[in-house]
Amino acid sequence: MTRKAIAIVGGTGKLGAAIARRLAKAGHQVVIGSRSAESAKTAAEELGFGIEGKTNAEAARAGDIVIVTVPFAAQEATLAEIAPHVAGKIVVDTTVPLVPPKVMRVQLPSEGSAAARAQRLLGEGVTMVSAFHNVAAHKLATDEDIACDVLVFGDDKAARSAVVELANAAGLRGVHGGALANSAAAEAMTSVLIFINKTYAVDGAGVQITGKLVEPAD
Amino acid sequence: MTRKAIAIVGGTGKLGAAIARRLAKAGHQVVIGSRSAESAKTAAEELGFGIEGKTNAEAARAGDIVIVTVPFAAQEATLAEIAPHVAGKIVVDTTVPLVPPKVMRVQLPSEGSAAARAQRLLGEGVTMVSAFHNVAAHKLATDEDIACDVLVFGDDKAARSAVVELANAAGLRGVHGGALANSAAAEAMTSVLIFINKTYAVDGAGVQITGKLVEPAD
Repeated sequence: MTRKAIAIVGGTGKLGAAIARRLAKAGHQVVIGSRSAESAKTAAEELGFGIEGKTNAEAARAGDIVIVTVPFAAQEATLAEIAPHVAGKIVVDTTVPLVPPKVMRVQLPSEGSAAARAQRLLGEGVTMVSAFHNVAAHKLATDEDIACDVLVFGDDKAARSAVVELANAAGLRGVHGGALANSAAAEAMTSVLIFINKTYAVDGAGVQITGKLVEPAD
Repeated sequence: MTRKAIAIVGGTGKLGAAIARRLAKAGHQVVIGSRSAESAKTAAEELGFGIEGKTNAEAARAGDIVIVTVPFAAQEATLAEIAPHVAGKIVVDTTVPLVPPKVMRVQLPSEGSAAARAQRLLGEGVTMVSAFHNVAAHKLATDEDIACDVLVFGDDKAARSAVVELANAAGLRGVHGGALANSAAAEAMTSVLIFINKTYAVDGAGVQITGKLVEPAD
């Protein structure tokens, strides 16, 4: 594995902290960001594994790959915070466009997906990838095996491959899902999974791709 | 199992014929429809299991539950054909909004989903459900076990339950996926699965929901 500098913007949240911990444990150099540097530092110390805490902007500046893990309502403001620091980098948007209170209902944004919205907000100067939409944060926060694939979307195949590798490093299975526009499928599926959790009393339903997948040549 | 009268509109197509055969084999009374009554009769005889063949309009008139299995490009014209015969019935739309040549790219219609489009075209007088978006037709045409869940969407819970039972009768696992609007998730996932089939050389990738699902009380 090549050690990479990974920034987790919004890394004090449940999903961000869980991704940070798993990637740092796997040997990556991880910085978590928050609006407050103090909160980020405190959370980083709790997570351990050499994780550092900074402001979102500083974290984004420090990372070669910048993973954004904030609620949909905070997506626009957060991307504006990091925009000056991500030119030429891979930005991994994990945003699921949940619109409370109807989080069990698919409500995709006018751009078609939160990922397409992120690309619009950050412009073409970043290489946009999206992933980690369907995995339950409270499971990712543990060391247990998780029965959920990570579908990875993006128009740049090499960038997508880098994020598939990160998902694998986090102990999940990353699966190429195609163009960034295809992110709509995984984003929408999260509302379906929330509905299934409620309807079938499941603790964190997930999604797995079936069939014998042969690793593609890059 | 309660024997039901099931119409498969577009039932000479691959998906329709496969669903017809599995439901008839399970003991349901199945009529397949086609634009041509002759084609429908010929296909019905080949399928066996007492399946009948009629025009789409006649089939829709004969069915208590009407399953529509036509390509996206034929959805509007086909729904117009059956509209006079489906008032008060459960209509199951299976349409995946693939837009050739880019079938590996998610391109949801302006209504948000093909299912919402079907509801708009048929009006509120029918009980709309959507299902069978992700299962590979060539696998469904066999008797083999298929590793793919059938996500079932609809705003009417009882109608959704009836279709979950049909999926189960067809030897698959039907899973309640929530509101009709949530159909976008499974419809979009089909383009992702086509991409995965190509990228990973899979013969018919599918989707399974993970987690211990406890049957809901209806």
